Amino acid sequence: MSVTVVGSIAFDAVTTPFGSRERMLGGSAVHFSLAASFFDTVHVVGPVGDDFGEAEYEVLRARGVDTDDIERVPGGQTFFWRGEYGWDLNDRTTLETRLGVFADFEPKLSPASRAADVLFLANIQPDLQREVREQCAGARFVALDSMNLWIETARESLIETIAGVDCVLLNDAELRQLTGEPSFVRAARQVREWGPRVVIAKQGEYGAAMFSDERFFALPAFPLESVVDPTGAGDCFAGGLIGFLAAHPEEELDHELLTRAMAYGTALASFNVEELGVERVARLTVEEIVERVAELQRITHFVCKPVALRA
Amino acid sequence: MSVTVVGSIAFDAVTTPFGSRERMLGGSAVHFSLAASFFDTVHVVGPVGDDFGEAEYEVLRARGVDTDDIERVPGGQTFFWRGEYGWDLNDRTTLETRLGVFADFEPKLSPASRAADVLFLANIQPDLQREVREQCAGARFVALDSMNLWIETARESLIETIAGVDCVLLNDAELRQLTGEPSFVRAARQVREWGPRVVIAKQGEYGAAMFSDERFFALPAFPLESVVDPTGAGDCFAGGLIGFLAAHPEEELDHELLTRAMAYGTALASFNVEELGVERVARLTVEEIVERVAELQRITHFVCKPVALRA
Repeated sequence: MSVTVVGSIAFDAVTTPFGSRERMLGGSAVHFSLAASFFDTVHVVGPVGDDFGEAEYEVLRARGVDTDDIERVPGGQTFFWRGEYGWDLNDRTTLETRLGVFADFEPKLSPASRAADVLFLANIQPDLQREVREQCAGARFVALDSMNLWIETARESLIETIAGVDCVLLNDAELRQLTGEPSFVRAARQVREWGPRVVIAKQGEYGAAMFSDERFFALPAFPLESVVDPTGAGDCFAGGLIGFLAAHPEEELDHELLTRAMAYGTALASFNVEELGVERVARLTVEEIVERVAELQRITHFVCKPVALRA
Repeated sequence: MSVTVVGSIAFDAVTTPFGSRERMLGGSAVHFSLAASFFDTVHVVGPVGDDFGEAEYEVLRARGVDTDDIERVPGGQTFFWRGEYGWDLNDRTTLETRLGVFADFEPKLSPASRAADVLFLANIQPDLQREVREQCAGARFVALDSMNLWIETARESLIETIAGVDCVLLNDAELRQLTGEPSFVRAARQVREWGPRVVIAKQGEYGAAMFSDERFFALPAFPLESVVDPTGAGDCFAGGLIGFLAAHPEEELDHELLTRAMAYGTALASFNVEELGVERVARLTVEEIVERVAELQRITHFVCKPVALRA
């Protein structure tokens, strides 16, 4: 089977206390694609400008990603983002955003992209997400990401889009902002009432939590000696998670499968932040992923023995 | 065996968006004692004023807590704290602190308190913590909590105190502030170089993470429909954790035992925040604790099956 992702393909300029790059490959669809490529065939859909060259295509193709639906706009400039992180890497400042070809992006999916079994709508304007979702009417599982900008400027459209997907991935603060509910339990219930079966809260360095059907699951982030660049961690998490689901079409997409998918998402996100941009995930090995998921299980496991408590 | 705790015994005035009280029993030693009382005999050490009455003693005694080392200072006023929480309960403002009898507190432990097998030094001035630690020279396991105030005003003393204990419990931000290390992995290594075998980072609504010896463990917080009052959650966490360790003198105090202790700490903290002050924990049942720990295991468990990944 295969996965289609629609989102940004970008050049990022990133400064963190631990390193910086003036121009490197980035964007939600790119981070997602590389992470998901360890599990299944990925079709990446998004616009680029003339400045997007063979070297950038090659990063994706080297991981087997289908780049046929990358739309190259003559005379256009690729989406550009410049950001800076503080010593506390949760503290991020956007210094510059140049939409470039992204400003007039109208997603056009090829038959191969439309035929994908699983669809990920990365963080783009919710009307566009809905158009893509309609082009992939036959997808077995559809997930979306969003951001505070759309919650603030296009809330009704976002909720309409959410109603048409199976899974919502947002960070903690976005879930609170979207629902007006202070607790994740209530926020997830609200979102699930709009339609999706699965709601996942991304919690950055703390991990991620999920409601699927009537069950809850939480997984801490993998503990790292040093985090260099958090950019794209959420998209790599989604890539590992959605890629894993796409690669298991024969298994029922139930809570148990989703918990395993969460572990792969967590593992992929943890590699991503170890180096700048896509550098770490682009040269990741299968063995490293397998070992990290096994380690994730060890560090979250405890035994529940009978205990004599005092009434 | 038994546990001794030294810390504040207080009246709290708390306002949260979900309820408020003008005067209720609180303080780190009280929250700790009630939580630990489900596991072992607890000796509570701390000063109170004339305003501390039978009703307050009774809350502790009803849970079997030994109150003989509560020092009642004639003419004194019990420590008082007034705080307010925002809609985001991580956003806490201290409105008033009246030290009262706490200002001149000199911990004097009775033979019973000195003989305790396990000692918890709740958040008080680090010189005092060290004095208490010296009075309990024979304790098998000693843990401490602290806060930003002492990191800022008594850092050297705090580090000296830390050198004499087995386990440090601090919240995330305090661990970063204390060590100057941005990552928990590095912060824990730094603290362990000072002496303690075990370092635990309290992460509030996200749970807690632990380094013990060379191993890592992390546990998410229990998901709650509504959190009413986070005051004392960290002390209840410590009470469940340390109480559990005290109640298992026959088992080796290794990483595996500590992971189980973390589960009980997490459970006790989750009950504490469901209602104002000590109200929920004071009427907690053994069955509720057992059920919550079992549920904690269910919501963190995932199966690790072999997966075909793409190189």
